This record gives sequence, C-alpha cells and structure tokens, in this order.
Amino acid sequence: MGSVFGSKLKISIFGESHGAAIGVVIDGLPAGETIDLDEVNRQMQRRAPGGDKTATPRKEADAPEILSGMLGDKTTGAPLCAVIRNTNTRSADYGNIMSAPRPAHSDYAAHVRYGGANDVRGGGHFSGRLTANIVFAGAVCRQILKRKGVDIAAHIYSIGNVLDTPFDPTFIPTELIERLNGEKFALVDPSIEEKMREAVGEAHAKGDSIGGVVECAVAGLPAGIGEPMFGGVENVIAAAVFGVPAVKGVEFGSGFAGSALLGSQNNDEFYFDENGAVRTRTNNHGGALGGITSGMPIVFRAAVKPTPSISIEQKTVDLQNGCDTTLSIKGRHDPCIVPRAVPVIESAAAVAVMNLIL
Amino acid sequence: MGSVFGSKLKISIFGESHGAAIGVVIDGLPAGETIDLDEVNRQMQRRAPGGDKTATPRKEADAPEILSGMLGDKTTGAPLCAVIRNTNTRSADYGNIMSAPRPAHSDYAAHVRYGGANDVRGGGHFSGRLTANIVFAGAVCRQILKRKGVDIAAHIYSIGNVLDTPFDPTFIPTELIERLNGEKFALVDPSIEEKMREAVGEAHAKGDSIGGVVECAVAGLPAGIGEPMFGGVENVIAAAVFGVPAVKGVEFGSGFAGSALLGSQNNDEFYFDENGAVRTRTNNHGGALGGITSGMPIVFRAAVKPTPSISIEQKTVDLQNGCDTTLSIKGRHDPCIVPRAVPVIESAAAVAVMNLIL
Amino acid sequence: MGSVFGSKLKISIFGESHGAAIGVVIDGLPAGETIDLDEVNRQMQRRAPGGDKTATPRKEADAPEILSGMLGDKTTGAPLCAVIRNTNTRSADYGNIMSAPRPAHSDYAAHVRYGGANDVRGGGHFSGRLTANIVFAGAVCRQILKRKGVDIAAHIYSIGNVLDTPFDPTFIPTELIERLNGEKFALVDPSIEEKMREAVGEAHAKGDSIGGVVECAVAGLPAGIGEPMFGGVENVIAAAVFGVPAVKGVEFGSGFAGSALLGSQNNDEFYFDENGAVRTRTNNHGGALGGITSGMPIVFRAAVKPTPSISIEQKTVDLQNGCDTTLSIKGRHDPCIVPRAVPVIESAAAVAVMNLIL
Amino acid sequence: MGSVFGSKLKISIFGESHGAAIGVVIDGLPAGETIDLDEVNRQMQRRAPGGDKTATPRKEADAPEILSGMLGDKTTGAPLCAVIRNTNTRSADYGNIMSAPRPAHSDYAAHVRYGGANDVRGGGHFSGRLTANIVFAGAVCRQILKRKGVDIAAHIYSIGNVLDTPFDPTFIPTELIERLNGEKFALVDPSIEEKMREAVGEAHAKGDSIGGVVECAVAGLPAGIGEPMFGGVENVIAAAVFGVPAVKGVEFGSGFAGSALLGSQNNDEFYFDENGAVRTRTNNHGGALGGITSGMPIVFRAAVKPTPSISIEQKTVDLQNGCDTTLSIKGRHDPCIVPRAVPVIESAAAVAVMNLIL
Repeated sequence: MGSVFGSKLKISIFGESHGAAIGVVIDGLPAGETIDLDEVNRQMQRRAPGGDKTATPRKEADAPEILSGMLGDKTTGAPLCAVIRNTNTRSADYGNIMSAPRPAHSDYAAHVRYGGANDVRGGGHFSGRLTANIVFAGAVCRQILKRKGVDIAAHIYSIGNVLDTPFDPTFIPTELIERLNGEKFALVDPSIEEKMREAVGEAHAKGDSIGGVVECAVAGLPAGIGEPMFGGVENVIAAAVFGVPAVKGVEFGSGFAGSALLGSQNNDEFYFDENGAVRTRTNNHGGALGGITSGMPIVFRAAVKPTPSISIEQKTVDLQNGCDTTLSIKGRHDPCIVPRAVPVIESAAAVAVMNLIL
Repeated sequence: MGSVFGSKLKISIFGESHGAAIGVVIDGLPAGETIDLDEVNRQMQRRAPGGDKTATPRKEADAPEILSGMLGDKTTGAPLCAVIRNTNTRSADYGNIMSAPRPAHSDYAAHVRYGGANDVRGGGHFSGRLTANIVFAGAVCRQILKRKGVDIAAHIYSIGNVLDTPFDPTFIPTELIERLNGEKFALVDPSIEEKMREAVGEAHAKGDSIGGVVECAVAGLPAGIGEPMFGGVENVIAAAVFGVPAVKGVEFGSGFAGSALLGSQNNDEFYFDENGAVRTRTNNHGGALGGITSGMPIVFRAAVKPTPSISIEQKTVDLQNGCDTTLSIKGRHDPCIVPRAVPVIESAAAVAVMNLIL
Repeated sequence: MGSVFGSKLKISIFGESHGAAIGVVIDGLPAGETIDLDEVNRQMQRRAPGGDKTATPRKEADAPEILSGMLGDKTTGAPLCAVIRNTNTRSADYGNIMSAPRPAHSDYAAHVRYGGANDVRGGGHFSGRLTANIVFAGAVCRQILKRKGVDIAAHIYSIGNVLDTPFDPTFIPTELIERLNGEKFALVDPSIEEKMREAVGEAHAKGDSIGGVVECAVAGLPAGIGEPMFGGVENVIAAAVFGVPAVKGVEFGSGFAGSALLGSQNNDEFYFDENGAVRTRTNNHGGALGGITSGMPIVFRAAVKPTPSISIEQKTVDLQNGCDTTLSIKGRHDPCIVPRAVPVIESAAAVAVMNLIL
Repeated sequence: MGSVFGSKLKISIFGESHGAAIGVVIDGLPAGETIDLDEVNRQMQRRAPGGDKTATPRKEADAPEILSGMLGDKTTGAPLCAVIRNTNTRSADYGNIMSAPRPAHSDYAAHVRYGGANDVRGGGHFSGRLTANIVFAGAVCRQILKRKGVDIAAHIYSIGNVLDTPFDPTFIPTELIERLNGEKFALVDPSIEEKMREAVGEAHAKGDSIGGVVECAVAGLPAGIGEPMFGGVENVIAAAVFGVPAVKGVEFGSGFAGSALLGSQNNDEFYFDENGAVRTRTNNHGGALGGITSGMPIVFRAAVKPTPSISIEQKTVDLQNGCDTTLSIKGRHDPCIVPRAVPVIESAAAVAVMNLIL
C-alpha cells in the first residue's frame, strides 16, 4: 500500500518497468479544470530518457493514454487514470539480477520483502520509470495550481561538486520559472551547463555515475496554508519527495547549513512591503513556519544519490548459490539522473501542494 | 488535523503551552505489553527543560498521568492517553507577541491560519513543550520495540560548527545505545561536550541561540520492512521527524554529502557475514533501499535550526498598528535545544518505526 | 487504531469504563468558533444515565474538563481535548465476567483480540459509557453546523414493537428539531411515551431488556456534498454510526422497506419549489443520490439491539475452567438504552457530516 | 477522493460508463499469491449484464486486462491494475439526461457537485458498470482469503416480496458456498427462482423495476479480528458495501428485526462445541461483538433499491429551461439488478475483510 499518496487528492501509482504498462489514478481533482495535454506531455518529455546525452539510451514514447476523468480537455471530477504502455524493454540486460542484487538498488530489500515474488526485470515497480506517473500527476496539478497563482520550478542545484547559482529564496521571478519549466537541463545560470556535463561525461567515461542536488521553489502560496506538527508543509512535501527513488535527503530553507548558524543569523525579520503585505527580508525558513506557509516562497532541496547502475565491476552476493560474486551492469547505464529528476521533484511537490490547499 | 500521525499506530497530540494540559492518545498499541513508566519518565526527563545549563529556565514536572490504556504495568490494547498538566506558566513574558510576531516562530503563520483565534501564549499548540508528548509516545513504543530487538539511539552530531564523532553506520554497539539512551547531553565522543557547551555559552552570553544536527540510528530491524514509493522507511520517518518543531532537514545515510559522490563511491557492496547474513560493507544507503529495510541500521540526521527566541533585538512588524517594530525576547531564553531534541527525534523515529513494523 | 474516526475532522476516543477517565481529542475544528459548553453539557445530560427510570442506576457527573483547544468560549484551531473523570465505579459487580463472557457483549471477542490483557471491568473500552465522548464531540460539531444552517435531530422510532410517528422525510420543521434536541425521551408524537415506557417496564420487571430503532435527520445541507462510491454520505455516516455500540443496522430513506418496492413507487420525482429550488416530492432516497446530497434532508434509521446485560439467567462458558456455566447480571441493569442512544446517534452523524462538509 | 477504499489493502477505482475504459488499482496485495484469472472472469460474468433475461440488454466482454502486479499467475506485491475497455456504448440513449435528471439517479446531485462538468453519459462514474471493478478486486481477494480458510457467499434474500430461505447464520455449509459462488441467480432454495423471475417479469412488462435484498455470509474468520468503535467489522464492511450503488441499508445478524426483541431473545448463548471451540447457539449478533469477530460467521444483509431507470413516464425538472418535464427511459432498461448485485456485494465484503485481516 506504499504507492498511494495523499489525503485530499490521492494518487495511486501502478506498473512495473518491463510489465505491460505503468500508470496513475488521480482521485480528488476538481471538476471542470482545463488540462492542456500537450503541456503535460512536454513535462513528461523533460523526464523521459533520450534526447540528451546524460540520459539512459532507452527511448520511450511515454505517451500517456487518458482512460477516464476527462471529457474533451476538461476534468470531470471523476478519477483521472492515465496509462503509459511499456515498449522497448530489453529484459535480457538484467538476466542475472535475480540472483545477484545490484549494490544500492532495491533488489535485495525487495527480494526479502516480497519473498522473491516481485518482478525484478528492470527494477520492477521500483524502476525510475515509474516516476513518469509522478510527472503526469504533477503536470496536471501544476496547471490547476497555476490558475490559482501557484508556480513550481526546480533546477539542478549541483551535480557532483559543480554548483549552479541557488535561487534567491525571497523572490522567484516569473520569467525564471517559465524558462526552467521548459528545460531538460534546468539551470539558474545556464553557463554552468558545460561544466556539469563534463562532470557527467567524466563519470560516464569511467563507467561510473554521479549524483547531485535539485532545488525546488513553490511560489505564490498565500500565508496560512498547512497544519501544525505532522500535517505541515515540510511533512507533506517530504513524504511526497522521498517517494522519488534516489532521493536521500530533503531540507527546507537554510536547512542543514542553517543548523550551524546562530539565531540572530538564521532568523528572518518581518517587514511590510510596499503593498502592505507582511514579508521576511531573508527566507532561511524556506516558506514554512510551524508547518504553515508564511507567504514567502517554499524553497527546498533534495539530495539525489548517484545512479546505482554502473558498469564498473562491483562486489555483491549470489543469493542462489550463497557465495560472493561480482556484477557489472552493461548496456543500460544512466550516468546522471539529476536533470531528469528536476521535473519529477517539481511534480511530487505539486501533488503535495494540492493536498495542502484543497 | 495536523496533530495526528500514523496509520497502524496513531498518535493524536493535544495541548497548548499555557493551557490546562498537554497530552497524547496512542491508538493501536499491542495489548499485554509491559511498560516501565519509570523508564518513560527518565526519557521525558532527558527532554525536560531544567537540570542543564543549556536549557530554558522553565522547570516542569512533566509527569504524565495515564488516563487509559493500561492496567497495572501492562497495555490493555485500548487507546493509551497520557496527560501532563501545565504549571509554572508565565504568560506575561509573552505579552507583546500577539501584535508582533517573533521572527522564525510560527506566530505570524499561525495568526493567518487561524484568523487570530489561536492561543499565542508561549507559542500555544506550536510550543516546543508539545514535544513532551512525542517523547512519551516514543518511550512507550521503544520498550515494545526493544523486546523485538529494535533499538533507537541518537546523539548530538553537531552544535554550530562543533562536531561529535559520527556513528559507524554499519554497526551501532549495544553499549553505545544504552549509554546514549541515558544521557541528557548525548555524545558518541563525550570529550567534545566541553567545546559544545562553550559554543552554546558564547551564544547565550550574547543573548543569541545556536542550532545543530541530531544523528539517529535504528538498529535491529530485519531486512524487508517498508513499502515502495510513499510508504517507504524514509517517507514515514521524515513525515514524523518533520513534526518536531525546528527540524528543517532530514537526510538518510550519506544524504546530501552522498549526492556529490560517484556511484562507485556511494554504492554499498553486499557480502555474506560470518553467520551467512547478507550485509553491506558500507552503509551509505542508511538502511533503506527502495524504501525497504536492507537489514543494516537505519541512520538519519535531522537539522535543528537555532532557537528563534533570542534576547538580541530583532526587527519585526506590529500587526495591530501596521507598522515596523522591534522585539527582544527577555527572560525565557533557551540558547540551544539540540541536546533536548535528541530524545524527541529518537521518539519520533520510534513512532514511525512502529508504523512500519505493525 | 479503531477509536479514531474521520479524515478532515478526526476524533480520537480513549478511556475505559472503570479506568481513571474517558475522553476525546477533536483534531481539525475550525478556529474562532464559539462553543456554548452549557449546551454541550445539556446534550451530554441527555445521554447520561440516571434521571430517567429507563436508565442504568449508575449516576455520573459526566462533566467534561476541556484540556486544550479553547480560549474562553472559542475554539483556537488546535486539537480540543475533553476529559471526563470516572467516579462511582463498582467493579465488584462484574467480578465473574473475566471467566464467563456475557452473551451478546464484546467480552469474549475482546478477550481473544487482546489475549486477555484488556480491561474487562465494566466492559472496559467497549463500555457504552465511551459514547459520552461521541456526544461531546458531536455537541461541539453541531453548534458549528447550526451556524451553517445544518440541524440534526433524532427520535425514538420504536422500542420493541411500539412505534413513534416517523419523520416526514421531505421536511423537518425547525420547532420539531428544537424540541427533540432538548428531550431525554425524544418522540415526534409524545403521546406514545407511556406505551413505550410500559414496554420497557415490562422487560425490566422480568429482568430483561428491550431494543429499538432511532431515526435521525440532518436538515439544511445543500445539494452537492459528498463523494461517489466509498466517500459517499451513506458510507461516512454508516462508518460513524456503526461505531455506536449496539447498533446493528443502518438504512437510509426507504431503506429495507424500499427494496421491496417497484421503481415507480420508490423513485422520487423532482420538481421546482416556489423559490425555484430543485426538490423531490418524496424522499425515499433519504437525501443522498450516488453518495451525494440532493438538498433534501438526510434521513436514516439505526437498529439498536436490546441491551445484552440482563438479570435473567443465561448460559455461557467458563473460559478458565473450560466448562459450561450460567450467568445472571444483577444490580447494574439498563433495560433500554434506546432513549439515550438518540443523542449519541445524532452526534455520530454530526461528526460524519463535519467530515463531509469541511 | 471517494473512489479509494481501504487502509491496509487500498483499491482505487476509475472509469466512466461511456469513457475509454474502467479499471481498478489494488495496492497492498500480498506477494506470491496465485490468482486464477479464469475464476476471476467467472465471477465477473456473474455480474455482467446479458446472459439472463432479468438483466440489461447491454452485452459486454468485461474482460479485464492486467497491466501490472502479476508475473505469470502470481502476484508480485506491486499494485495490481486491471482495465476493462468500454465497448457497445450507445450514448444517444441518454440524450436528454443532461437537462432532465432521472429520478432516484445521481444525475442531479452529481450535476451540482461537479458544476456540470461531470460525464453524464450512462451515469458516468456513477454507473453500475463501475461495480465490475469491485467484482474484479473482490474476486482476487477471495482467492487469497479462501487459502486462509475464509469463504464468502451471498444469495438473493428477496426480490420484492418473494423471499428465499435465509442462511442458517450459525453454519454455512461449504457445498452451499461453492454452489452459490457459481451461480448467476444465487438462491439457497433454487425452487423460489421461478417466483422471483415472475416478480421481475411483471415489473418488466409494465416498464417498471423491482428491488430486493442480498444476504451475505463470511465464513471461516477466527475470533478476535477487528477493532473497537470505528474500526469494527460492521464499520468496515458497511463502508465498503454502501459503495455499491443502489444499496440503501446494511444490517448485521438479526439487525432491524432484532431491535424489536428482548435481550433474552436476542442474546446468543456461548457454549463449547465438540472440539472445545467457543461458539454461540444462535447468531443474532451476526459474527461481530464490539466490532470484533466472535468466530461465528459474519452475516449481513444489504437493501438494494429498485433500479431507478424505468420506461414508465416520470416527472422531473428541466434544468436548462427551469421548468417541469417528464422522462421515460427507453431501450436500456434493467428491471432488477439484485441477482447481479450478489457477486458485487460478496466482493465488497471481500475487500473489507482483507482490510480487517491484513
């Protein structure tokens, strides 16, 4: 029951990497909302592998079919189900992982969890491919949120040790949001792209992979959204974002760096802006105080671990024969998923935010 | 509805800092479990202010009264309710915060959220005092978990820039766990205490506060616990730990640092130990792969922001008069809550883990 | 985890009949709502035993203490906890029920469920006394609902074979609602009271008990509230009302009788009333179509089984000695709980309706 | 968010009568369970229209395609999604219902709920066709339950005033269960079929419809399953069964009839059977005491209202023109859905029971 998220807007994700299809049911969408499916597809293309040399060579249409919940271009209020057929699956590539779990993959943990009955081909239900469903759901939600004045944008904060310019957390300009929302390699400072690609290329050349950090901002939420304690902005967003495979850390505002500061450095002073609105001069709190929005942008970062699949030989165990063995994952090698994680994390945030505001 | 947590074991927290009482209802506890209330009280004393010069001068008995759910020293299976009366409240200290929200506090966000009807005295329902309920619930759960072989221990990973020795994430010795579980200033390396107290004392002397990081380990969980996607170990623990006020980041295993690594550096190789059990040589994954336990200790860190309340004068707004003002919080000044956050975060983890294993 | 109800407004009930106290936490109440606690107490007195010869001789203050969630007479938006101390408990009356489960009571089922660790005194957490918490929560909700134009009233539809006049389901007059809301023996036709009391008295005289049916109406909900399938009006109300001990059936509108009809008899024709509002001429649908309100009153009936505790000797088993035995419950004998069930069922409906409209 | 049911096993239902497809995602199925899809299809055929003169003339393959969650004939532990394509839809039949809501249908309530954006063709998401998803999910669950010794069988308790022989609630023979599970017109006493068909035929001949009651038994559950208050057997089953369109009442054991009895008549005496198991001589409690199973069969009845669609002319309103009008539903006329409701109600019970035992 782990693949259902949300209280007011529920998404239920299904599918396995090499099964017939993947998909998502979105329950609780408002009725009568216009959804531009071309824009949804554009968001899905940002996540789709292919079309970028940092990505896995598997090329997929990733074209969702809407089975329910829409009439023409409008939501009906009934659950919206979208299905994406799996094609171009090459299960043979994964021939030995049933016996030899891939380091840092879910293989071993899932093997124990499901008593060996799980679909291991391509990672099964744990495959990164399942994030296409999150992007679909998020892209639908984002169009509804946009009409309420809420925008979500993320960028590659870092790959390895190469850093983009961080967001100014007190103000996320609309033009920046729009530009980022259209890019496959989303950067605040595009001039850093070459260095980042070099870092990826270096790892790739060695048969290795590399991780990074995605920074995400939610702009336009009014103050007063959220609940104390366990229903807070941070809890709900983190619960969604940790649902993105490879995310191992989530921090809001000044986050871990802020914990090394003094109160006088980290506290954000309030002031009235020119329109009489209460704002803070800095945004170390990342847009949420006591779990509730302050009216400042929500800003968080998600740590994305390096892709586990590498062609460098690694030690692991042979579960069938009970002995040590080695593993080298050839052919299907995605050296850096951080650029593709950008729309996924934006989308997970969008689903979380819908649950906060509905 | 933000103060309820859990699916299989539900805790419902209530209370306001300067109201009649605070408390918690724990629904879903197994029946017939012996609970040593002295040990529960010891855990609550670790969180309680007073008895340590880093803490707030407010001294409270924090003695919970059990209203239901226990017969003698055993759980009955019915909801367990514990209530802690509020005493020693000095509301006058907070006289002006209704009009002038404290920077980095929930005051302003809550004011908007509740249309001004919320209890602002002492932070109301947002007060750190409410974490006593989490410690109570966690202390009860930890005794049940211990009998299942599951131990939870945390330590002060850092205060400001002073760092303790991190856990060896591949092995948390029982003696270390037991020692840490008994301490009010829990450190892997106790020799660092003096330096940490100096950092706190320096901040205190200036009327300032200081943040830090708590590292927490859950040892003894078998492999195969958890769910994919949104029901994973990380999601459930993060959703609980972000319920602790002042926590602004949560990372598992190598976390943010790991995202700067190569796959070959971050991947954890599997091996068979001398007992034929599958283990990993390193534990950069922090005990969960694909959301499911690997059998290695769960290790995570939580960033605790510096206490917002400082006596240094800060700029803020006067909501009643619509003008800028300044604020200096005298008298009640807790320069560093990180030591007291240790048992709270252990307890939030305990409640989360109960939900994973039940 | 069975004693928590609701998604948007959550109530968490605790307590055992002969423990220290019973109580309820209400999470998700709107802030700034005025609550007249005298009116709440009046509702609780309608349920309280004593003051009426049909009721159990146990007399209790049933005076709730508010521990949190209110400032003066207003809700703060934080969880509202009310506690009612147990007094006047005479556990000796129940001396033998640990070994000999009472027929039709939860004793045996709970004994197995909790491995014998549950508190059996007075029925423990399964005691009808726990319904005081439902009345408390419902009385709070009803004041909020009333300000939104929503009224809830129930009456004794029948005791044994003595029937009150049913509601006219198409229109519940305000005066009737107000009268019923103030009565301990609520009847549409008060002239039937004597006959009903005779039926109760006859059962009482024989050491027996008698059941009945409560009919409840929710007036003033606009059309369009609720969700299809499992989130419908009927599902949510039934899930709450079956939480009232002794309720064994729930039917809406024409219910079971309607299932024996033809469509042409049971269908409710639509028409425009003098104000241009869409209404139905009859209300066999009980106010909900497809799970969603039609704008007509919600009308449902709940079957309340005869109180299990009777002083007539009954056969049962001796669990300790593994042999048959007999049981006669002396002293504490409530011959008919139907009158007191009226405010409990109104209250369960109120909590359900709050979850539908929030 | 109304089309998601369950806590431990979650089903998420989607689809609209005349959309592309309907389907269901089942999240939380145990892994490694063999599912005989032919048996699933047999159950679906029991519900499918056609093949029986009491049913709607619409003939559908109702052949579900499994998109995920199975490998060969075994569950993988990942969410199982099944999709059924819609074919043979004749939207023209429903040309005027957008403006003229059908009496007793969801049309008007849904129109208000969704602001007119819902898919009205064939009832949209409210169509009885959606129950195919419940049967699919239930049929999968029933195979898993059967291996745990739990069987579920229902029969047509009544159509109009024609009654089948009720279950003996103390014992449901295996042969009876198996026979009923294979029938499209399931009766304890098959000799009553002719009379029932006559009642249906009479209604049909007049262009009318007729309702009935389905009685359902869950045999083989041990004592001690369930939770007090809101997590009880009755609450969970009722919350699921009220999800079946047309169900307007649910009663357990002696239900409404029992509420007219004396305690001495309705109480079920305990005894030890020949194997030393605790049983009750009668089963007026319907298998649950205090919300928890007693070890006796769970027996409940669901009132199914007469199908709203009739060709007899009915009065209704013209929402577009704001005037009264009349409506006669030609062509698509299902005079009695009670026989087809049998497998749907068995299936809803199965999903509920899975949530109780997991």
